[in-house]
Amino acid sequence: MAASEEEVKLLGSVGSPFVIRVQIALELKGIEYKYSEEKLGNLSETLLKYNPVYRMVPVFVHNGNPISESRVILEYIDETWKQNPILPSDPYQRALARFWSKFIDDKCVAAAWMSVFMPDKKEREKASEELLKALQFLENELKDKFFGGQEIGFVDIAALFIPLFQEVAELQLFTREKFPKLYKWSKEFNNHPIVKEIMPSKDQQFAYFKARAESLAAASK
Amino acid sequence: MAASEEEVKLLGSVGSPFVIRVQIALELKGIEYKYSEEKLGNLSETLLKYNPVYRMVPVFVHNGNPISESRVILEYIDETWKQNPILPSDPYQRALARFWSKFIDDKCVAAAWMSVFMPDKKEREKASEELLKALQFLENELKDKFFGGQEIGFVDIAALFIPLFQEVAELQLFTREKFPKLYKWSKEFNNHPIVKEIMPSKDQQFAYFKARAESLAAASK
Repeated sequence: MAASEEEVKLLGSVGSPFVIRVQIALELKGIEYKYSEEKLGNLSETLLKYNPVYRMVPVFVHNGNPISESRVILEYIDETWKQNPILPSDPYQRALARFWSKFIDDKCVAAAWMSVFMPDKKEREKASEELLKALQFLENELKDKFFGGQEIGFVDIAALFIPLFQEVAELQLFTREKFPKLYKWSKEFNNHPIVKEIMPSKDQQFAYFKARAESLAAASK
Repeated sequence: MAASEEEVKLLGSVGSPFVIRVQIALELKGIEYKYSEEKLGNLSETLLKYNPVYRMVPVFVHNGNPISESRVILEYIDETWKQNPILPSDPYQRALARFWSKFIDDKCVAAAWMSVFMPDKKEREKASEELLKALQFLENELKDKFFGGQEIGFVDIAALFIPLFQEVAELQLFTREKFPKLYKWSKEFNNHPIVKEIMPSKDQQFAYFKARAESLAAASK
């Protein structure tokens, strides 16, 4: 199939950090795609068919082949379109990028969400404490302009929930004094021309947070 | 560095399914390595230096470069030693292998552990219910002798906790009637000559389960 006939689709919800990961990767590589908005709590038949396991966005579809899970999608995009690689070429550096992006998903994302949105104050404090412990590892790991060096890479894209919370939504996860390197990185990341283009507005971000909280509350009933 | 001078080390604990994953991959590729046994609850200084984030086995060390997290290690091994690939070569098939192995870690491993070892009966039943729901997806996904086709691949290696529980430790996670394909696969996997060589004995497996339960109990104090 010629490049011009390729079908590239993304099923997403505006404001989802996991969807933004995929959008940034596609934009960095200059790949055109069709975007289809999914309503949280009322997902399309197409989404449920493509992602019956998790029933979540993002779902990426390439020539009819659906892929879920944002980090899996990022690896697929990087292997399929070689320009502007987001994973390093050296196997050990690739392993470290996979390790840290997995760490972000396992130790940071849920803790950040809970540190802001849990109804109970004690649970918010506990989550915030866990988040700060995890972010300390990322602070120590940051040795250049970006985690990926001079350019945005796999770990930067995985970590975008930090600038999303910190800059877009103005929900302060940490202070400049606590993590000076992460603070600076967060601003650099958000000022990157491609990131700027893709990051949702503050209003869109709050609409997403609200819809997600309602969808979780409905699911737990 | 010539192949003969390569330093390949694995820090593990006998009976850990995550360590066995790495051992099977190394054995499938015919790579010699030094094995160093770690005592749960009393880990070596070396392990803590190499894996300060999770403080867990396995840690794989290649020419002085440490890597943690079993799926990250498997990808590294597959990229570094090309013989007998464990991930498929097609990018979409690779994405599916990554998706299902992540699914196994997210939805099956902890549920299997809890379905057997939680002290509270209700919690065991709840975990078992979740496990069976997740295993149904794997049952539907199994279309050949192995998940990887005619040969053992990435998903088979990730899923080895099933034959470990089912066959080695004789802890029945499910019946032959419930999941006939997984049941057959479990036996095939365990009869593979390399798997047979590496799987721990029943006594070793129970010693590991006991040590792990004690280590978790001590950590939660």
